[in-house]
Amino acid sequence: MRIALDAMGGDHAPGSVVLGAVQAVQKDADMHVVLVGDQAQIEPHLAAAHGLRDRLEILHATQVITMEESPGLAFRKKPDNSITRCWQLLQQRKVEAIVSAGNTGAMVAGGFLLRLFLPGVRRPGIAALMPTLQGLSVLLDVGANVHPKPAHLYQYGVMGAIYAKHILQREKPKIGLLNVGSEEDKGNELAKETSDLFRNSPLKDQFIGNIEGRDINKGICDVMVADGFVGNVVLKVCEGVFDFVMKVVGKEIFGALRVELPLAQQALGNIIKRYDYHELGGAPLLGVDGICIIGHGSSKERAIENALHVAAKHARAKLNERIVAELAAS
Amino acid sequence: MRIALDAMGGDHAPGSVVLGAVQAVQKDADMHVVLVGDQAQIEPHLAAAHGLRDRLEILHATQVITMEESPGLAFRKKPDNSITRCWQLLQQRKVEAIVSAGNTGAMVAGGFLLRLFLPGVRRPGIAALMPTLQGLSVLLDVGANVHPKPAHLYQYGVMGAIYAKHILQREKPKIGLLNVGSEEDKGNELAKETSDLFRNSPLKDQFIGNIEGRDINKGICDVMVADGFVGNVVLKVCEGVFDFVMKVVGKEIFGALRVELPLAQQALGNIIKRYDYHELGGAPLLGVDGICIIGHGSSKERAIENALHVAAKHARAKLNERIVAELAAS
Repeated sequence: MRIALDAMGGDHAPGSVVLGAVQAVQKDADMHVVLVGDQAQIEPHLAAAHGLRDRLEILHATQVITMEESPGLAFRKKPDNSITRCWQLLQQRKVEAIVSAGNTGAMVAGGFLLRLFLPGVRRPGIAALMPTLQGLSVLLDVGANVHPKPAHLYQYGVMGAIYAKHILQREKPKIGLLNVGSEEDKGNELAKETSDLFRNSPLKDQFIGNIEGRDINKGICDVMVADGFVGNVVLKVCEGVFDFVMKVVGKEIFGALRVELPLAQQALGNIIKRYDYHELGGAPLLGVDGICIIGHGSSKERAIENALHVAAKHARAKLNERIVAELAAS
Repeated sequence: MRIALDAMGGDHAPGSVVLGAVQAVQKDADMHVVLVGDQAQIEPHLAAAHGLRDRLEILHATQVITMEESPGLAFRKKPDNSITRCWQLLQQRKVEAIVSAGNTGAMVAGGFLLRLFLPGVRRPGIAALMPTLQGLSVLLDVGANVHPKPAHLYQYGVMGAIYAKHILQREKPKIGLLNVGSEEDKGNELAKETSDLFRNSPLKDQFIGNIEGRDINKGICDVMVADGFVGNVVLKVCEGVFDFVMKVVGKEIFGALRVELPLAQQALGNIIKRYDYHELGGAPLLGVDGICIIGHGSSKERAIENALHVAAKHARAKLNERIVAELAAS
């Protein structure tokens, strides 16, 4: 299992990124990571990885796309950037998967520029795991495609269902469309046309219809389909509200306690750890020919390590073969 | 101050709605409420309101639009519904404000059908108060207009700023545009064009640019402008995540405590009460010629009472005169 890792991507690159790779190959004896980025900056962080160097390769890339750069301009100005080099390795089949916690827009654009899409896929979409009262559901697209057509959203349902079945182990995943109301005639034109597509498709028995924002964490379906603009906003609203409520809870409840304060602090710490999006380990860009995992910009060692394990798991689950077969059949 | 109240609107109508009106007129000696709906169903709930009956009038309406009905069809089938009757009272200047916790789509459509817009307003939008770490901010539109144009969103900024100044008492309200990233070139076409409008407008000094979903509860601006589809989803996501986190917190923290459990329960109860959207008292549909307040479908007495006080406050603040003047100037 060869994976290219953008060693320069994210707020804590390259140090934490390289350390995450070291930890991942320590735990997965079949994993080989190509660290893509500035050799001089990467090398020092590999000092402690003596026995693992045969599975930790460096591909030197001289340029870095920053978190704030506009992808289109950055690709032109910086042809030797680490993200483009990762995508090229994937295109040349030198790796099975690529991982980056860098500029999400650039990571997506890299795949779109090469049009490295699976046969039948119109537009790849980013799938994010959302915690629910029942476990986890998958929300897509969360930002790859901010001008989707109904057919794109339908394909997100197809890919999301395959993901839910083979990664989340749901036998017959239920699919919902994120909309402004649960009634059939609700929403904008995009939502109405997408809803019609699902209702007249091979997925019609798995399609539960519209869901609303307040259903996101209820776990009423396994796959939640959204316009990439809406999905991106929703993902970040969830993060924001979670942080907000944790702050309020910390202040109010801790302020009310005395002797049992440490117990409550530990319980709150457990909640934050369990739902911490910084540690979730990255979201797949589904629909590309290869595995592409996009990590949170704030990823540290553990998140990078998780993202690498996620990439390996997705490659082993043969998600892409299943997506191609399903799209060809529908 | 005469206000028409849709006595048949919401999950707890007419009982809780009528009781909310009784409580409101008890507290506001200048308030006169026209209860619009089925006289036979309303009357029994007024039994206890002896001394207040001169300020609690009934306007009989024989039909009710249910929460699930499609507005277009419902208006044709039910011409004598309570929502239409409320709007007609507003149009005829028999009341200064209307309030309903009924079908939001129908409430909005009622105003759109009559085109009872303020001079200069392209499309009214619903403004919702969002709790933040700094206090409150206003988010609009949260669902009146799911196919907005850039000029509509710009007007939401104008109206939201007037609201923030005169209702939230912010001297020079800051305005942000909800988008998928903070950089200028981010987002879909609607967001980019709207951003350009703001940057070249009289509001340019108050426009802080794009904000992201995770900024919603940070209070980094006073007015958050969004596409009605996105805003509606966001509002409900906030409700959903709040409920979800409260459940998780209750389970984890309460499970960890023994002697101080009651203290923690009380603190959590205080948080829920403080941020309870069921009690917030309704969101204004800004841009209509008159005051229109839309309550949450789950509104009980206190929420209805609050919505009536909000309606009176908005009418007294002369928001509409200010909106007309501001739009004429810009």
